[in-house]
Amino acid sequence: MTTSSLFRPPVARIPDPSLAHRRAEATVTLLGDDGAPLTDAEVIVRQKRHAFWFGCIGFDLIDLANGHERTGYGSDHRADSGASPDLGYDQRLAEAWLEVFNQATLPFYWGTFEPERGAPRAGQLRRAAEWFRERGVVVKGHPLMWHTVQPGWLLDVAREGGDAVTAAGLDEVERLQRERIRREAGGLAGVIDVWDAINEVVIMPVFTAEENAITPLARARGRVETIQMAFEEARAANPRATLLLNDFDMSTAYECLIEAVLEAGIEIDVLGLQSHMHQGYWGEEKTERILERFSRYGLPIHFTETTLMSGDIMPAHVVDLNDWQVEHWPSTPEGEARQADELERHLRTLLAHPSVEAFTYWGLSDRGMWLNAPGGLLRADGSPKPAYDRLRELVKGEWWLADTRLRTDAAGRVTFSGFLGDYEIEAAGSTSAVALTSPGATTAEIRV
Amino acid sequence: MTTSSLFRPPVARIPDPSLAHRRAEATVTLLGDDGAPLTDAEVIVRQKRHAFWFGCIGFDLIDLANGHERTGYGSDHRADSGASPDLGYDQRLAEAWLEVFNQATLPFYWGTFEPERGAPRAGQLRRAAEWFRERGVVVKGHPLMWHTVQPGWLLDVAREGGDAVTAAGLDEVERLQRERIRREAGGLAGVIDVWDAINEVVIMPVFTAEENAITPLARARGRVETIQMAFEEARAANPRATLLLNDFDMSTAYECLIEAVLEAGIEIDVLGLQSHMHQGYWGEEKTERILERFSRYGLPIHFTETTLMSGDIMPAHVVDLNDWQVEHWPSTPEGEARQADELERHLRTLLAHPSVEAFTYWGLSDRGMWLNAPGGLLRADGSPKPAYDRLRELVKGEWWLADTRLRTDAAGRVTFSGFLGDYEIEAAGSTSAVALTSPGATTAEIRV
Repeated sequence: MTTSSLFRPPVARIPDPSLAHRRAEATVTLLGDDGAPLTDAEVIVRQKRHAFWFGCIGFDLIDLANGHERTGYGSDHRADSGASPDLGYDQRLAEAWLEVFNQATLPFYWGTFEPERGAPRAGQLRRAAEWFRERGVVVKGHPLMWHTVQPGWLLDVAREGGDAVTAAGLDEVERLQRERIRREAGGLAGVIDVWDAINEVVIMPVFTAEENAITPLARARGRVETIQMAFEEARAANPRATLLLNDFDMSTAYECLIEAVLEAGIEIDVLGLQSHMHQGYWGEEKTERILERFSRYGLPIHFTETTLMSGDIMPAHVVDLNDWQVEHWPSTPEGEARQADELERHLRTLLAHPSVEAFTYWGLSDRGMWLNAPGGLLRADGSPKPAYDRLRELVKGEWWLADTRLRTDAAGRVTFSGFLGDYEIEAAGSTSAVALTSPGATTAEIRV
Repeated sequence: MTTSSLFRPPVARIPDPSLAHRRAEATVTLLGDDGAPLTDAEVIVRQKRHAFWFGCIGFDLIDLANGHERTGYGSDHRADSGASPDLGYDQRLAEAWLEVFNQATLPFYWGTFEPERGAPRAGQLRRAAEWFRERGVVVKGHPLMWHTVQPGWLLDVAREGGDAVTAAGLDEVERLQRERIRREAGGLAGVIDVWDAINEVVIMPVFTAEENAITPLARARGRVETIQMAFEEARAANPRATLLLNDFDMSTAYECLIEAVLEAGIEIDVLGLQSHMHQGYWGEEKTERILERFSRYGLPIHFTETTLMSGDIMPAHVVDLNDWQVEHWPSTPEGEARQADELERHLRTLLAHPSVEAFTYWGLSDRGMWLNAPGGLLRADGSPKPAYDRLRELVKGEWWLADTRLRTDAAGRVTFSGFLGDYEIEAAGSTSAVALTSPGATTAEIRV
């Protein structure tokens, strides 16, 4: 269309349940100080990290990361979760979290981040991000622009203090929104280099559940220019950042929006697809069809927000999940068994597809979970559900290279096969790092 | 976005059930040959036409317009309707048609228009279009590009004679599609100056019900460039044409597509919204919400394809209406009464909205109707259902100025009030034309 169009002919990416596209066979040659092959030597290979992001929200570890300060952040994405401080619980949660996940999503909802204008809670979030990074975890900020969980004062800006949103008010909202994106994306560059640049734009300009300043802004500017706004500010503030367009709408509407964005020449790094399955597991067929439809743009795909119930599922007639308010929504033994199976099936479907590079679960524990849903992998008391154990068996079992003792051959070589990721090789009293970055046969040489 | 973006801040168009925006109060001064006012003279005012398009498909009058030649066109949009020639019926149909409608949609489905490559049925369609034009009817061609009712030979082109669609095959399909648009839009310029340039693009690249050559083309080029293709060829071939983007998808997907098209600088003249209500009348609230959402782009809206049942409605679980195949789908007395009420309510809702400039019903008679549905305003035997009478009472009654006798005043003036449209003023043995083109008070001067 325009000369800067980024729309490309579709690509066909074929799923492979064997996951060969996620494995490498490494031949590593070990050399001594003198450059000679280290022959017939004992070697220990240890996997340290998956290249694939197995992620989770880290909202409920913000307190812990801040030295047990009560920040008010919980696993719900709304304001204060109301959870009481429980240091033992937090510690157990952190251990369970770090055992299976290597990517954390942290909350940057404007309404909870800057409830009082001019007093952003950047310090708490920075400390939380650093806490995760120190533990080898990639941190993503979510989101830089969205119409929900808004600060009340921003609507006053849009209304210029009156009763109705004005054009001048929206100009000021745009200025503040741009400034806020630059502040967060720039201020945390190097600590957080992955962002949901903008969230749920399909519904943004026609969202009616709650009056806010961003919906009329998106309506006035149009969806494409709104996305452009978020991406250009985030890109300028942190040129190294990986920026996502994220949505829950899996209909053709999201396709149309993506095509609009690509035609307009807006560079999105990753397509984010939400999958809150409060109304039931999608199943392989639906998930595969979605992957086929959204992978054809040739962009990496992140499954950014997955939830699976370990209790009753929400009735299908509910359109906005937020409308389902129940006092008690228990996790049940049958539900927990089903959740474990569904989580495994979902993960196998995602990993089989070569476009998928990340999977983020939306809440490790039932305690303080969004909608009170039994969607955690731990129960509210912190004990693991079968789904947690199943996840660990996959991430740290079937898909993980257990510590392996090998001996080098006459040429100083060892070979091993493992999932793409970071490995440590210990030999002759020293330890070296090897990264497996592309599938198939690969070679490396290290000096010990 | 781009410098050529046509996206504009949204406009709020307020519905007005009084229809004041469709009425004018005319003061006409009559002058004699000598330029002196024609005082105290008898004047007859006759309305000749509505400015608003009250339209219907004209598929089943193509035979009649072609001198009763059996063309195979019927009120179904698919191939040969199988209806047997019935000259008396055709004549009654034509009379009923012309009594209430002033806009005809004619079928240009590539598959029925050029079933054999190189032998387009342009002559029959031209004669039909001329027949309508001679009777004061605006003719629209539908559609220049669509993925359904395709000629079989085009799929062979896409496959280069083999089993699978190829990139080179698609290049050739694009060339032929462009050529076909130019041929029809250019060849009929002056006879047909309104076109559905492209139909149902939201689903086009992901359409799976029937293999065809246009779906993979739209997939390869992207939705925006596909629309660009249709509009640039039609515009070049007939610069005076009114070109529509037409869709049945009333979800946010169509909004996203429209915004993509406007951002890309593609000039669409009119937004076409389909409303086949085989699954039940939408009701005022849904219709008004749709009008509010799609009117905000500031473009005129045509309700291009409306159907209302006078029998049972199709179950809600049917997604593709074409999947509902029933042998017998009768029109019932209760259904006919309901259909009449719903047609009136629907029309009042549409006319109340200032963006709506046209309403096209999808088939006057039940005979040969798409899906065998009882969606006609006449029964299969040609007798009028209550909905037909109701439509006539509105179009030629409540919204029509009956022939009116007036006397000029001392300044040679008469005043009358009527719907926007064309009027004839008879005085002193001569007849003059007056057009009411904008709402509110207006003046005119005529010499008799």
